[in-house]
Amino acid sequence: MIEDKNQQRTPLSALGEFGLIDHLTKHFEIKQASTVKGIGDDAAVLNFGTKQIVVTTDLLIEHVHFDLSYMPLKHLGYKAVMVNLSDVYAMNANATQVTVSIAVSNRFPLEALEELYAGIALAAKIYGVDVIGGDTTSSTTGLIISVTAIGTVEEKDVVYRNGAKPNDLLVVTGDLGGAYMGLQVLEREKEVFKVNPNNQPDLDLYTYIIERQLKPEARKDIVKLLKDLGVKPTSMIDISDGLSSEIIHLCKQSGVGVELYENKIPLDPQVISTCEEFNIDSTTVALNGGEDYELLMTISQDDFPKIKANPHLTVIGFMTEKERGMHLVTRAETAIPLIAKGWNSFENA
Amino acid sequence: MIEDKNQQRTPLSALGEFGLIDHLTKHFEIKQASTVKGIGDDAAVLNFGTKQIVVTTDLLIEHVHFDLSYMPLKHLGYKAVMVNLSDVYAMNANATQVTVSIAVSNRFPLEALEELYAGIALAAKIYGVDVIGGDTTSSTTGLIISVTAIGTVEEKDVVYRNGAKPNDLLVVTGDLGGAYMGLQVLEREKEVFKVNPNNQPDLDLYTYIIERQLKPEARKDIVKLLKDLGVKPTSMIDISDGLSSEIIHLCKQSGVGVELYENKIPLDPQVISTCEEFNIDSTTVALNGGEDYELLMTISQDDFPKIKANPHLTVIGFMTEKERGMHLVTRAETAIPLIAKGWNSFENA
Repeated sequence: MIEDKNQQRTPLSALGEFGLIDHLTKHFEIKQASTVKGIGDDAAVLNFGTKQIVVTTDLLIEHVHFDLSYMPLKHLGYKAVMVNLSDVYAMNANATQVTVSIAVSNRFPLEALEELYAGIALAAKIYGVDVIGGDTTSSTTGLIISVTAIGTVEEKDVVYRNGAKPNDLLVVTGDLGGAYMGLQVLEREKEVFKVNPNNQPDLDLYTYIIERQLKPEARKDIVKLLKDLGVKPTSMIDISDGLSSEIIHLCKQSGVGVELYENKIPLDPQVISTCEEFNIDSTTVALNGGEDYELLMTISQDDFPKIKANPHLTVIGFMTEKERGMHLVTRAETAIPLIAKGWNSFENA
Repeated sequence: MIEDKNQQRTPLSALGEFGLIDHLTKHFEIKQASTVKGIGDDAAVLNFGTKQIVVTTDLLIEHVHFDLSYMPLKHLGYKAVMVNLSDVYAMNANATQVTVSIAVSNRFPLEALEELYAGIALAAKIYGVDVIGGDTTSSTTGLIISVTAIGTVEEKDVVYRNGAKPNDLLVVTGDLGGAYMGLQVLEREKEVFKVNPNNQPDLDLYTYIIERQLKPEARKDIVKLLKDLGVKPTSMIDISDGLSSEIIHLCKQSGVGVELYENKIPLDPQVISTCEEFNIDSTTVALNGGEDYELLMTISQDDFPKIKANPHLTVIGFMTEKERGMHLVTRAETAIPLIAKGWNSFENA
């Protein structure tokens, strides 16, 4: 649960800024044909032929987005890449490159950054993206990670948030609420650890949801699946802030309304049992929890036969005329207005 | 010299995360033909036809890279963009887009961020780049700015750091050391202000060097000039860490040595007079000061007639076989080894 204080500690100042960058990035291989030049010049050079390019960027800040008392640095590096790749896939694009910049205080030894970069390298390897650049500098306090992800997409394939039409089906991948409940378990164990550091937590009951929090996977497979099925969504977004907030984004940008069915929202049994244990409503968790990095999309009803019975895709509602508004239809068949609670980092800072 | 404490203060929490992004970015116009979709989706979408793309990224951290007690936020926004555009121009490329992510603590009111974004918008307008995305989040302490810049270049025009050949001329744009000496003046005035807040500093003698520090300009004009002159450098790098450090980068990556002539290094009269006032050696400042954002390049001797007498370009030395090493030839005609002191942010953190 906590950093090993006895590990080898090489101070960052022993390497200097250039030495540090070289040391951390020397193992990154270039595999994408579109990467002409990776790390080592003023800028990376890419060549995508005639394809369109997508670009997205995210900042992760210690004590705001992650807590190193239960987030291993290798997982953090992996997750920082996933968060950005998820945005690329939400455009129906293929992720090809990332840049990773970090700012760290001297409390981090070199070995800690090696762990972080091992996670970045693992994510890059598994998802087939090249790490082509970045910046490494010092911070006066915590750890800051800035990732920019780049991908390619044929012009005809790109999917925006604004293409949903009334009567389109609302479809989500995977299941929801796991990352949030994993965080609740980790926060609880952190408190237990503070009281009794010798207590060894038994987390066997929570393996799936903890993994959803600590090592999320971006849905690269869905971009391929949709292509294989011959389905181009009419709109798509990734679920980083919570289902409710993302549905509202699609509705507002597309100028449509929605009927979301509570009883259709996919939940893992571990999410349900942990919600019961914590006495939290599982629908609230799915709607507002966030960090699931699943994809939310709308598809034409004509495409329903192609996705029907696919285990990765769940129809959870349908789009309506804008005037009908945005509603959650509860298990009791009551329609209540959908509101975005999401995750507002400024309220807690 | 200091933040106005009486300005209007709208807390960031009043807008929330999405509201803040919308508010700060709503005025950004799309002007580049290559920007298909800017801010507002999971990722921006770009289309460069068949051109190559360059990508570079930098992190700026409060108390490490800037001090808000003398750096106005509008200037900071401008400089954050310049730092990155400079890297694009150092590839002999044209800058086309930037993403800007910021993390701020609640001590910053909305009006402060509006100032920051006004500087970003001004830089984007003057340099003709589109702001296509970014992330806005909270930080537990200071202000963090992460910029990624994108540019395009024809495959035949791209200039790397590794193409310098023995006998190539070493050429620098503009003059050096100004940004560092401007910082020395600002630091001194900050100390004076601490002792006597009513003291109004007279900075008329230092206008050029203070502007070099607070509002540097990236050398977009040089990319055009080189094209007009019909000169393609054999290698190029921008001067962010100091002349000495950048020369060593070119030598190491190109596998060559260098003879740098102290008496050829271009210095503004204000740099010379301020160095005398501070009792600092001006050559040391030019070699190690950094943040000048000039371009350092090597060109074939065959191209010398094309650049001769151009006021923007100064020949400061020539490249040699690697075995001859890297030397500064002093005014006393003594060759001393060139070493990189540069700027190591880890030593001060």
